[in-house]
Amino acid sequence: MAPGFNPRRVSVLEYDRQVELRVDPERMRQDFDALATFGATPDGGVTRPTFSDAHLAARQWFLARGRDAGLVASVDSAGNHSVALNAKDEGARTLLLGSHLDSVPHGGRFDGALGVIAALEVVRSVADAGLTLPVHLEAIDFTDEEGALVGLLGSRALAGTLMQEVLVAPRGGREALLDGLERAGLSEEGLLAAGRDPTSLVAYVELHIEQGPVLERAGVPIGVVTGITGTVSFEVVFTGEARHAGTTPMGDRRDALVAASAFVLRVREMVVRDFPGCVATVGDITVDPGAFNVVPGRARARVECRALDIGALDALEHALDGAAREEAAQHGVALEIDRVGRWEPVPTHALVRAGITRAAGDLDLGTVELPSGAGHDAQALAAVTPSGMVFVPSRLGISHDPAEETRWDDCIAGANVLLGSVLTLAQTV
Amino acid sequence: MAPGFNPRRVSVLEYDRQVELRVDPERMRQDFDALATFGATPDGGVTRPTFSDAHLAARQWFLARGRDAGLVASVDSAGNHSVALNAKDEGARTLLLGSHLDSVPHGGRFDGALGVIAALEVVRSVADAGLTLPVHLEAIDFTDEEGALVGLLGSRALAGTLMQEVLVAPRGGREALLDGLERAGLSEEGLLAAGRDPTSLVAYVELHIEQGPVLERAGVPIGVVTGITGTVSFEVVFTGEARHAGTTPMGDRRDALVAASAFVLRVREMVVRDFPGCVATVGDITVDPGAFNVVPGRARARVECRALDIGALDALEHALDGAAREEAAQHGVALEIDRVGRWEPVPTHALVRAGITRAAGDLDLGTVELPSGAGHDAQALAAVTPSGMVFVPSRLGISHDPAEETRWDDCIAGANVLLGSVLTLAQTV
Repeated sequence: MAPGFNPRRVSVLEYDRQVELRVDPERMRQDFDALATFGATPDGGVTRPTFSDAHLAARQWFLARGRDAGLVASVDSAGNHSVALNAKDEGARTLLLGSHLDSVPHGGRFDGALGVIAALEVVRSVADAGLTLPVHLEAIDFTDEEGALVGLLGSRALAGTLMQEVLVAPRGGREALLDGLERAGLSEEGLLAAGRDPTSLVAYVELHIEQGPVLERAGVPIGVVTGITGTVSFEVVFTGEARHAGTTPMGDRRDALVAASAFVLRVREMVVRDFPGCVATVGDITVDPGAFNVVPGRARARVECRALDIGALDALEHALDGAAREEAAQHGVALEIDRVGRWEPVPTHALVRAGITRAAGDLDLGTVELPSGAGHDAQALAAVTPSGMVFVPSRLGISHDPAEETRWDDCIAGANVLLGSVLTLAQTV
Repeated sequence: MAPGFNPRRVSVLEYDRQVELRVDPERMRQDFDALATFGATPDGGVTRPTFSDAHLAARQWFLARGRDAGLVASVDSAGNHSVALNAKDEGARTLLLGSHLDSVPHGGRFDGALGVIAALEVVRSVADAGLTLPVHLEAIDFTDEEGALVGLLGSRALAGTLMQEVLVAPRGGREALLDGLERAGLSEEGLLAAGRDPTSLVAYVELHIEQGPVLERAGVPIGVVTGITGTVSFEVVFTGEARHAGTTPMGDRRDALVAASAFVLRVREMVVRDFPGCVATVGDITVDPGAFNVVPGRARARVECRALDIGALDALEHALDGAAREEAAQHGVALEIDRVGRWEPVPTHALVRAGITRAAGDLDLGTVELPSGAGHDAQALAAVTPSGMVFVPSRLGISHDPAEETRWDDCIAGANVLLGSVLTLAQTV
């Protein structure tokens, strides 16, 4: 028996029923397919940005599916939608499982949606089995994870870590936020008041597609997420001199794009050589004036780096900063660096990881421990309650694209691991 | 006495008057300043694109200034504006000197304008001196040199090398061309019928600012242009895979921008090392999708190279093409190369170069022979008549910018060299 599971609190019969409990793959498939019709695009993806008609309709459908199963539906003042199987004791704590129903424009059917459908299916399966749990079991759809408006909006609101400043200058623009809140019948006051008492929470577990190639390459169906990497993003602006490309000899140029290009290559070389397991990316360069016949006067590079360890993140940012300075000096151009944002690394909770690993073991499913390079609602929840994530493989690592795909067997495996983890955590955390 | 000058055709008295003839610096300055008021911008530059109100007004002013001096004003069916001092013999050939009055948006006061003002001043000075030349002396303002509509439009039309195809898909768009022609009272038929009989032409000489740093650096006032470099421009598109920058390990990436950056550095290295005197430029890169958190899926580089020698131009294009292929293969991305345009190199005529060199020598002005990296009306004229150019220094090599500047002494020196060249050529070509 794995550590952390305490059979003293359940009868032997109840314990056997728990160990044998599985989600209903047919019902889950039907729900998954039904959900994918909201905001469906012709190429098999979905466009379901926060508070779009498709998004609002999908959320209503989710509540209705919960009510159909006899669950208790609710919406909090941050617009988070929940369906719950309540414990007999009204004062019991809540075990949260969920993800998000919003998508990026032209996204795939799995990102977020799989986690919400699996959470619904897990709660429904527990309810159908008539199991008695000592906690409220709540499947939750968080508001605006992807960031059409703010990013991790609902999960930060629930965790009580959403700050007023963020709402004043949100990622999608102030006007879009206010319009969206009005469409959804919400308010800024409601967002800031949506924090739950952390002592009311047991844990948070989220099933999500990996969005990377690691599990598929390893041929392993279950990823146990060790943490969510921290991210630093910044803009590096090289300023040289815009000159006529026909009349300015090579030796007289201060070409901003040559400096930026040297930086792009340095970023890649450095992270590969000195920061194993980390990533750094120059995702964009814009050139000014940007014409065939003008030596580039300015090149603006958009850069980010990620690391699971805070020391590595700091060291990586420092190294990238140094590389930009060296290349600017080397090519005789001026340099500005503007920090755009920083998210701290967030480790998952050891008990949640252990629960996931044990559940996978019970199901004879192989596991790999890996960090999440993408942000997730779990990183907001981790601030207030033990949190963790189950990953399932993404075909070719593709995500945020209509071609996003996870084998259905893997989806079911992930849902059953979520179910097993939840049953363990309900009695051990 | 320099070779090519034939004093047998003029009297000794006439010869002395010619050698001593100079332009009037005050009058030329007044005209230059008056011209700079058409389309003047607050920062000391001009915005005078082809067929704008400012451009059309400047052309009328130019004709009026010629008429004031007793010259014959005319406009051909390509909209080229001329003022001429006609020879006694109506059947005489014509010696053209000129440049263009259109400017790029937010350009400088000197590009094109100096050449037209100097041409006017030269013809006026010859007329004032009562000299008898065996040729018609014509100062010409060519239509649309800069290419708001087509580029070298008037000079190609006059040379008879303007092709119908060019008018069907012009650089500035078909609609802009048709609108512009209507505004100026011109027609496509007129453009295509504006070619002059090459046997009616003696030569073409153009004074222009260098638009590069060579003369200023050398401390020499007069450049004798050896030719106008040929240009090949092309787009190089690297296509990798757009992937989540947080979840895609460095080793799993096919990053289009990394490949493009390696290409940018190779272009510079290669031309500096293997093609002395040539230039190659990546003037722009656009990245798709172009976000902090997405590994670049596509990078489109805009590239051009220039060389005075056709063999060097071919070899340079071939080398750049090879470098793009190598970097694409090296970084595991796909490659497309689209040739956008090619202008052949155009040597200037030896007799015109000799005339310019001799005129500068007579004035005790130092000369440097150098190619023109920028395109000019002279390259169109070179197809039908002996053509050449006089360059004067550009401060810091700046051009196509309000900060464009040439010392007034250098402008006068250039005008006097133009005058001396014209007097020689009028009797020797």
